[in-house]
Amino acid sequence: MDELFMEEALAEARLAGQAGDVPVGAVIVQNGQIVARAHNEKEAGRNAVSHAELLCVEEACRILQRWRLSDCTLYVTMEPCPMCAGALWNARIGRIVFGIKDPVAGACGSVWSFADSPMHWKPETTSGIKAKECKELLSLFFEKRRQENDRRKEDRP
Amino acid sequence: MDELFMEEALAEARLAGQAGDVPVGAVIVQNGQIVARAHNEKEAGRNAVSHAELLCVEEACRILQRWRLSDCTLYVTMEPCPMCAGALWNARIGRIVFGIKDPVAGACGSVWSFADSPMHWKPETTSGIKAKECKELLSLFFEKRRQENDRRKEDRP
Repeated sequence: MDELFMEEALAEARLAGQAGDVPVGAVIVQNGQIVARAHNEKEAGRNAVSHAELLCVEEACRILQRWRLSDCTLYVTMEPCPMCAGALWNARIGRIVFGIKDPVAGACGSVWSFADSPMHWKPETTSGIKAKECKELLSLFFEKRRQENDRRKEDRP
Repeated sequence: MDELFMEEALAEARLAGQAGDVPVGAVIVQNGQIVARAHNEKEAGRNAVSHAELLCVEEACRILQRWRLSDCTLYVTMEPCPMCAGALWNARIGRIVFGIKDPVAGACGSVWSFADSPMHWKPETTSGIKAKECKELLSLFFEKRRQENDRRKEDRP
């Protein structure tokens, strides 16, 4: 089941990449059903808070009409940043499943770990689900961006 | 000037309290002008991400049509939580001014400190501005809530 829902998060991530944003996607699942889905829209929406996970938590709360998501699981292609991990904490999410780790800004174990903090919130956390696909999507995006930047440099008079 | 803008954040905090939310308010200032203002709407909006600072960053980005707020200052009555400090970091906010510290979930020095992290973001941070007023507002709110809870218990058959 984890692979199935991560595939849906990957579909969201592809939408972000097509719009020129770093390809990260997320879905929130309750009782085996997707209740919210979102992708990174930071550049497209010109908004610092428009990360996939935060938008997904916002949407799930709107749909379920409550701020507490302890019966829900978040699937996201990359480890959440401090803002997003903080949003998951504020929502008391029950479980977090992510694809690849983020050694630069990961807040679910890589750089910070809120779940190990003195807060009464210990979500089950699983990483590495469809990690190859999640990583490939990001690598292709950054490779394409590098090539575009190089072309722009060559075009300069 | 800091006292003046914190007074505006306090006005927002009072609106939150009147609506039944923990009274925290925030404003974002650019070139001596308030560009965004918001208050905690977690309970009223039934949304885990609707903290004053996050809503304020979201609004400032929408108004300025960019995710980078490095020329802006955030004023907030209480020290930001991890989600909100993370949002300020994602927006590369230039300066943070808060009223009182939060020993339970403060992420600007009290429990966590993103600004001391290996990230290239070192906002100027000032605390203690109008701290007495910020604290009084919170104390009154929680005292009122305790009294209401006690009354409810007494009313039980």
